Amino acid sequence: MQSAEDKLIAKFFKPLATHAGALGLTDDAAFITPRGNHELVVTADAIVEGKHFLSSNPPDTIGRKALRVNLSDLAAKGAEPVGFLMSIGLPQIREDWLGAFARGLMEDANTYACPLLGGDTVNTSGPLFVSITAIGDLPRGGMVKRSGAKKGDLVMLTGTIGDAAIGLALASGKIPGQWGLGRDECDHLVGRYLVPEPRNALASALRLHASAAMDVSDGLFGDLGKLCAASGVSADVEIKNVPISWAAGPALDKVPELIETMLTGGDDYEIVCTIPPDRERQFVALARDAKVDVKVVGKVVEGRKPPRFLDANGKALTVAQASFSHF
Amino acid sequence: MQSAEDKLIAKFFKPLATHAGALGLTDDAAFITPRGNHELVVTADAIVEGKHFLSSNPPDTIGRKALRVNLSDLAAKGAEPVGFLMSIGLPQIREDWLGAFARGLMEDANTYACPLLGGDTVNTSGPLFVSITAIGDLPRGGMVKRSGAKKGDLVMLTGTIGDAAIGLALASGKIPGQWGLGRDECDHLVGRYLVPEPRNALASALRLHASAAMDVSDGLFGDLGKLCAASGVSADVEIKNVPISWAAGPALDKVPELIETMLTGGDDYEIVCTIPPDRERQFVALARDAKVDVKVVGKVVEGRKPPRFLDANGKALTVAQASFSHF
Repeated sequence: MQSAEDKLIAKFFKPLATHAGALGLTDDAAFITPRGNHELVVTADAIVEGKHFLSSNPPDTIGRKALRVNLSDLAAKGAEPVGFLMSIGLPQIREDWLGAFARGLMEDANTYACPLLGGDTVNTSGPLFVSITAIGDLPRGGMVKRSGAKKGDLVMLTGTIGDAAIGLALASGKIPGQWGLGRDECDHLVGRYLVPEPRNALASALRLHASAAMDVSDGLFGDLGKLCAASGVSADVEIKNVPISWAAGPALDKVPELIETMLTGGDDYEIVCTIPPDRERQFVALARDAKVDVKVVGKVVEGRKPPRFLDANGKALTVAQASFSHF
Repeated sequence: MQSAEDKLIAKFFKPLATHAGALGLTDDAAFITPRGNHELVVTADAIVEGKHFLSSNPPDTIGRKALRVNLSDLAAKGAEPVGFLMSIGLPQIREDWLGAFARGLMEDANTYACPLLGGDTVNTSGPLFVSITAIGDLPRGGMVKRSGAKKGDLVMLTGTIGDAAIGLALASGKIPGQWGLGRDECDHLVGRYLVPEPRNALASALRLHASAAMDVSDGLFGDLGKLCAASGVSADVEIKNVPISWAAGPALDKVPELIETMLTGGDDYEIVCTIPPDRERQFVALARDAKVDVKVVGKVVEGRKPPRFLDANGKALTVAQASFSHF
């Protein structure tokens, strides 16, 4: 009596549904019992073949990316993962592909303690898509918003910026001579595009100390602009302070104009946050405990203008397009 | 500084985000503060152009259907709507289409008290898709599962069965002479396919009295089978008791074999539930208060075999395919 869809769910997705409320994916819905005095944080992001990933990408990386872009939002809001729902649109059932996809997803579900709660498996005549809703929780009133930045706060960043933008260009074969980058550099940069590193380890530190935060998914330039707009402030960032990876550094040395791509390209999934100066020391200590690099890149200033990204001469960078957009 | 996506969200979707925790869709996530001693129920369903709706369907009906198929799951589980997240994949931005889509969605969000909490708007090269996660709440431990049916319980149904299956056939132009159905009948049946009627008014009655429930989305025949399998029971249903609408009746009279399509076709979005006999009177009274028709169609019996659908001679119906499947 089982339909193709039911069989597929039982074989590939039920092993991910370790949350008691998911009922082994045998019901129409899952239940979540919130912890006392906690509230839930919910976020949804979809990825589409040919837009957010390439059909040639290893299927396990597609599963990981679909979940991680959502985990990144929970991290930025200071929430601990509870679980996720996934709707997946498949052009056909390919068991080998699904097996690898589900394996990557399961490893990440385990690593980030974010089990599958439910979802839907549908057929599509078009490109494959994965739509995930992630649910997190945190103490009531604790969600870190975009809107709390205050004049004088430090602008801080996790990890490194611009790797994924270069990685995408490399993966698309768009770079003549690969800017002289070696194999290790290329692998690292493409890897950063394929599988982002969500900063969930930093969630509680953000909750305790950040006045505002968001994850950098559409480029630092535009995303910091959104945070500033939501907070009614502006910011000055010194470009030389923006953390650049060992892999991207040589390319940037060779092609200085690359900085625009790195600051406006998408897919960093780092966190930009604002930290009151008297919290900096404690925040940095907690980040160290969490094994996440954080760095001060600028300062929140008065005003409503978009943030300025200043070069060594104090000149503000102008860009053709502030944010990455698929439309 | 606003991207095309941001503008689109602000124009079309922000008006639906009336939940305080949605922050006007200006943040990366929404927060939900659960009521004391309540738990949350989460469910996800996606609809894809060409599979779950036709590109020629009026856009407001597509928005309504995307939300209603999810509301139907909340209803069957006994949960009251809290809100929903929506990821939408658009082949292009067509403002007229989006305006009508969002209008239908907003009317239903208001009608069912289920505001938009967040989501994602992405570009796709393929068919349009709408992936919704609906969140509901109910008193802790109150979720009505598929697994609670007991021998002797009554099998009950809301509304009427088979309308959408005929409606889809009519809309697809597959029916020669439309089985002699008049214009009103055809309009009603196609309408039932386009815009299902989720039974959220019945949620609390189900919570109070149903031993098991699910919504009928892939055909009564297969869905009752799933409920029975989850409960470790079987059921006997008398086909003559299955509620048939005034519009479908004439077609069924003319083409009696149509009963198979009506019992196995998808998109009913009615609720099948099991009610202990000593609860029937109270359940029916509450259903009347909720203005939802309910009817006893059979009985839960011992055994593990698929439920039997019995004709007037007590002979069990056999079908080619128990459940609707898009794969």
